[in-house]
Amino acid sequence: MSSSFGQLFRLTTFGESHGAAVGVVVDGCPPGLSLDIADIQRDLDRRRPGQSKLVTQRQEADQVRVLSGVFEGRTTGTPLAMVVENADQRPGAYDHLRDVYRPSHADYTYEAKYGLRDHRGGGRSSARETVGRVAAAAVARRLLTEAAGIEVLAWVSRVHTIEATVDSAVVTLHDVEADPTRCPDPKAAAAMTEAIERARRDGDSLGGVVTAVARGVPPGLGEPVFDRLEADLAKGMLSLPATKGFEIGSGFDGTMMTGREHNDPFVAGPDGPTTSTNRSGGVQGGISNGADIVMRVAFKPTATISSEQKTVTTAGEPTVLAARGRHDPCVLPRAVPLVEAMTLLVLADHWLRQQALRSL
Amino acid sequence: MSSSFGQLFRLTTFGESHGAAVGVVVDGCPPGLSLDIADIQRDLDRRRPGQSKLVTQRQEADQVRVLSGVFEGRTTGTPLAMVVENADQRPGAYDHLRDVYRPSHADYTYEAKYGLRDHRGGGRSSARETVGRVAAAAVARRLLTEAAGIEVLAWVSRVHTIEATVDSAVVTLHDVEADPTRCPDPKAAAAMTEAIERARRDGDSLGGVVTAVARGVPPGLGEPVFDRLEADLAKGMLSLPATKGFEIGSGFDGTMMTGREHNDPFVAGPDGPTTSTNRSGGVQGGISNGADIVMRVAFKPTATISSEQKTVTTAGEPTVLAARGRHDPCVLPRAVPLVEAMTLLVLADHWLRQQALRSL
Amino acid sequence: MSSSFGQLFRLTTFGESHGAAVGVVVDGCPPGLSLDIADIQRDLDRRRPGQSKLVTQRQEADQVRVLSGVFEGRTTGTPLAMVVENADQRPGAYDHLRDVYRPSHADYTYEAKYGLRDHRGGGRSSARETVGRVAAAAVARRLLTEAAGIEVLAWVSRVHTIEATVDSAVVTLHDVEADPTRCPDPKAAAAMTEAIERARRDGDSLGGVVTAVARGVPPGLGEPVFDRLEADLAKGMLSLPATKGFEIGSGFDGTMMTGREHNDPFVAGPDGPTTSTNRSGGVQGGISNGADIVMRVAFKPTATISSEQKTVTTAGEPTVLAARGRHDPCVLPRAVPLVEAMTLLVLADHWLRQQALRSL
Amino acid sequence: MSSSFGQLFRLTTFGESHGAAVGVVVDGCPPGLSLDIADIQRDLDRRRPGQSKLVTQRQEADQVRVLSGVFEGRTTGTPLAMVVENADQRPGAYDHLRDVYRPSHADYTYEAKYGLRDHRGGGRSSARETVGRVAAAAVARRLLTEAAGIEVLAWVSRVHTIEATVDSAVVTLHDVEADPTRCPDPKAAAAMTEAIERARRDGDSLGGVVTAVARGVPPGLGEPVFDRLEADLAKGMLSLPATKGFEIGSGFDGTMMTGREHNDPFVAGPDGPTTSTNRSGGVQGGISNGADIVMRVAFKPTATISSEQKTVTTAGEPTVLAARGRHDPCVLPRAVPLVEAMTLLVLADHWLRQQALRSL
Repeated sequence: MSSSFGQLFRLTTFGESHGAAVGVVVDGCPPGLSLDIADIQRDLDRRRPGQSKLVTQRQEADQVRVLSGVFEGRTTGTPLAMVVENADQRPGAYDHLRDVYRPSHADYTYEAKYGLRDHRGGGRSSARETVGRVAAAAVARRLLTEAAGIEVLAWVSRVHTIEATVDSAVVTLHDVEADPTRCPDPKAAAAMTEAIERARRDGDSLGGVVTAVARGVPPGLGEPVFDRLEADLAKGMLSLPATKGFEIGSGFDGTMMTGREHNDPFVAGPDGPTTSTNRSGGVQGGISNGADIVMRVAFKPTATISSEQKTVTTAGEPTVLAARGRHDPCVLPRAVPLVEAMTLLVLADHWLRQQALRSL
Repeated sequence: MSSSFGQLFRLTTFGESHGAAVGVVVDGCPPGLSLDIADIQRDLDRRRPGQSKLVTQRQEADQVRVLSGVFEGRTTGTPLAMVVENADQRPGAYDHLRDVYRPSHADYTYEAKYGLRDHRGGGRSSARETVGRVAAAAVARRLLTEAAGIEVLAWVSRVHTIEATVDSAVVTLHDVEADPTRCPDPKAAAAMTEAIERARRDGDSLGGVVTAVARGVPPGLGEPVFDRLEADLAKGMLSLPATKGFEIGSGFDGTMMTGREHNDPFVAGPDGPTTSTNRSGGVQGGISNGADIVMRVAFKPTATISSEQKTVTTAGEPTVLAARGRHDPCVLPRAVPLVEAMTLLVLADHWLRQQALRSL
Repeated sequence: MSSSFGQLFRLTTFGESHGAAVGVVVDGCPPGLSLDIADIQRDLDRRRPGQSKLVTQRQEADQVRVLSGVFEGRTTGTPLAMVVENADQRPGAYDHLRDVYRPSHADYTYEAKYGLRDHRGGGRSSARETVGRVAAAAVARRLLTEAAGIEVLAWVSRVHTIEATVDSAVVTLHDVEADPTRCPDPKAAAAMTEAIERARRDGDSLGGVVTAVARGVPPGLGEPVFDRLEADLAKGMLSLPATKGFEIGSGFDGTMMTGREHNDPFVAGPDGPTTSTNRSGGVQGGISNGADIVMRVAFKPTATISSEQKTVTTAGEPTVLAARGRHDPCVLPRAVPLVEAMTLLVLADHWLRQQALRSL
Repeated sequence: MSSSFGQLFRLTTFGESHGAAVGVVVDGCPPGLSLDIADIQRDLDRRRPGQSKLVTQRQEADQVRVLSGVFEGRTTGTPLAMVVENADQRPGAYDHLRDVYRPSHADYTYEAKYGLRDHRGGGRSSARETVGRVAAAAVARRLLTEAAGIEVLAWVSRVHTIEATVDSAVVTLHDVEADPTRCPDPKAAAAMTEAIERARRDGDSLGGVVTAVARGVPPGLGEPVFDRLEADLAKGMLSLPATKGFEIGSGFDGTMMTGREHNDPFVAGPDGPTTSTNRSGGVQGGISNGADIVMRVAFKPTATISSEQKTVTTAGEPTVLAARGRHDPCVLPRAVPLVEAMTLLVLADHWLRQQALRSL
């Protein structure tokens, strides 16, 4: 149900921040895909905490273990179960949060919904849940690479008011990984670093925007009317913690243009029609048109801050709260692999769906 | 599959712009809901073309016929099928579009996906498909009103660069319907009207933003991790024709704030905790918190314009195309009931899901 | 939800016995399939009442109307909506059933579930609902024939205690349709006819068994672990009205054999391994093995009989009921196209699912 | 997808016979259910191999580990992940099966479907997969007991030709567990034991029938038209390894009765109408009527036998095969908890679905 995503390439994540483990089951991966555990570990390492001083210092080795679905280096067509143990648990570290609602966190809403909650580190609402998504997306990446030549890449394009200049058509993974901010514009990256460190010193936090591109997507992926490619991408992105907005192609800015300015003229290309501009962002009528798919995702400033904030207890009493310990003053660098993950998962699913449709 | 939406309150739409009929089947509506065909017709009339000179002059009576699922004025728990005949078909009116791809329409992508397409008025990609959604949403509205006291309202908050000032907490349906623009700020509405008429005269078109609010939503709707309320709302909105972006609460603007500015402090209320600000937009961790749910949806300028545009034929030859006949220079006024519809459908579904969860 | 069936070839039926219409939406049919309305009508005519004196004399023309999804004689990949109007309604004919529960019908359980019911002719629980399934299955038949060379055929193999002798490997549609009983063993058919007429005269009814075969199914259809081919077939059959049992291959009789007797030895064939016996019934481990798929479905004697029966009113008062008017003393002949329909729908779905899997 | 079952109480199993582990994720369990790991272990112990000399001597401790979804002894509403390590692996023990197709096993069909297979102990097709189902069903049992007072019990009612006499209305778990055959008729149990031991000595195997009853099911569970209770139960049972048939209520035998004999007369009861007979098997029109739900499931004789059998190699060469090592001469005793499991899973799902429906 609500912990599953995708129709044919379908994942189900499980696990809480401070339970025994987090993980994922992927059902529907085609058989015969060569899959190395190192492929999965590499992507997991990118989302891991403690990679730089910019992000939380919580240390998790996050070693993935594949329990099923792979035999002699190839997928078998049966479910892939992948588990990461929660090594860095600190019993008692969250006792002070048992009876208080952290502002702009899910503490109150979980309790309103379920009548009880695992208060340790946010429980299921913790971003730690995304470990399973990233592991599943690493498999999707292998599939899309091997079967379709599709490449997905994301980066930090804005932190607070600092906007980067990046060409989505040519930016590389190397460019992105060159700086701990995961902003491939070095000048902006430097300013972002300074801003993030200042926010940490101030007991404050910053938000921003992650941009993602999918290159090499063949025309025809996405399904009218509800499972449009952009609809599933929007759902995927807004299912990530801390997201508040999604744009594809021209997005909100495009609404400031007129139709004459905005329409993408078709031009003849060697492999069929292409467009001379790409305000559509690679989708038209919910279906990929062969152009790069370009998206932007808004991440709010981290809710956990070390400054004092007013809130109430579970008993309804006013109180004051200041975060202790490990937390990210800016989630943007660590959000990059998550945005990639959701893009990969949506594309893998629609790629399989398109194979079924092409059966005649 | 791709023409279905929702898990428990589930609709399946069908029909093409110039086929025999369009319609919807709703499966999962609880039994015993009093339902008058006039409730459905009223909402359909709001999305109908030809309501004012601002929108397309295509005339469709759009009389809905309920084929099943209602007995003696109440829902029976079995599927509701609702059909609207396509009365205003003009055979031959679209012959000139058979062999050409209209820019920023779905002509090329449908053909790339399916190998063939119904070229008449966009076929399945036409906004006429939304008749079924609006009919289904009228049932959802009855359910949410009767069972939960939830109210959903949308309006045009921007056309091109003309921004309206509207208080989402108090605006009424009467305010929205007072002007053909469906902008409840009279001054902005007048400017929008002028801009839309100018665009029509110029053979051009305009886009903009629709804002929606859901009031009276109880805490607890929405499910972690993939079926967050905002994720399903984002999917719903991006499944509407011509949409390019979605925001909830503080949205993209919120990323310009710091955590200290952005967090919503909890304060004690008579019925439990509330927040003194609502940057979260009524959802925290994917679950409603009892505050108003506020969203913004970006609609691109209408792709169909009467100015000449460069494009290619299905044979790959460059050509020039200018729209003839009936089309909207600005879809925003007619998009309002569609945004309401998707909000209603998502909330009805999650409301039912929450009932199942509360079973112990 | 509960009125939908299939994952990729997905149908949703709607309609009550004495509502305005019955019908179906098929989502997921691949594009480009040539489809003639006569193909659909032919299968509908086989399930139609009033075909012979053996079955109910209710007269319904059951003319199907295709509302969407077909353009210039081919499927477009978008939903096919098909509707049959309920012509032969008799208002008032069911008034005496409003306040009484017919034995072994769904009257009481619908009321227990929904709190209200459409009492006219069984409402949604009527076999009239299967019109939609048969229409959808006619499309599935076209798909399986054109794309995979699969042939599905069913027949009456037993009525009450009269068992037919039929060779499932060679029996033809012509053989089945040669007699109104749809039993292709002429001697048994004659005995069945006599028994059914006797039951009618006695105000009684008979049950029996329908056998179905699917020939030409390639190895590989069906998915472990829950969506085994036999599991989905069993679900399909038990979703038909009046069914009480399902067997595949050796079935219950096979449990009387030992493993040595029961196992199907593999032998080398020109196109790969085949089995020299077929106790497996064409499936092993939930997946087709290329042999004929052979199933048997038990249909109870018709619940509606013209003899007097004891029952209770909705107020809990004992009463006596005798059916009036039109009803089948034996549903078996009309069950044949229904069993075919469910077989076709399951196979079409799994055939599409296998295409998606074979994508690498 | 194919490794998932249920709509609201939804499980996804994973794992191969000789991979690292087997397990399950349960999504949709309501929050607040008190759940002890001992509840789960008890049911797992009942399906465990090596319990008596009647079944396989493979020794697996099958200790379950709960990775998520439980906090301080209660379910949290988030996914429950449960894992059992595969302790008793014997590398190399299955090398001789790499290039040969075992008769009436899934070796050939998996290879036909997927192009490759994990040949060790049947891989995914092994009954070891059912560990996950039984663990999930233990949670379902807790839910049904606590929330609805529903009790589910199964037993061996026939082995080969030895039929037991059991009263489904009163038989207890203690009766069933009293004998290693899990047949609560002591005389039949003794004969079954003898027959099974003889089959083992003869290098042969036996099949039979498991009967299950669900007592205390309230009227109203099950959904027309495709998700009838009996349809979902049939699917569940036929998704178990080695099953060839399913009956509910009067089953195939009921087709030998006339309608007058077969119909269940309604009689007034203190809590509403009941039936004086129960040929319907507790369901009418797909919905529970409050009577005991009674089912029978056919299990074929174990395919693995130690006698020599003719078969072919993957290269198509004729060969001869005789099973070595550990295997069950009769799966019936170990099938009992599996039939219970599928019954529990179907009922838990429909119980939740009914809660959602009753929302008005």
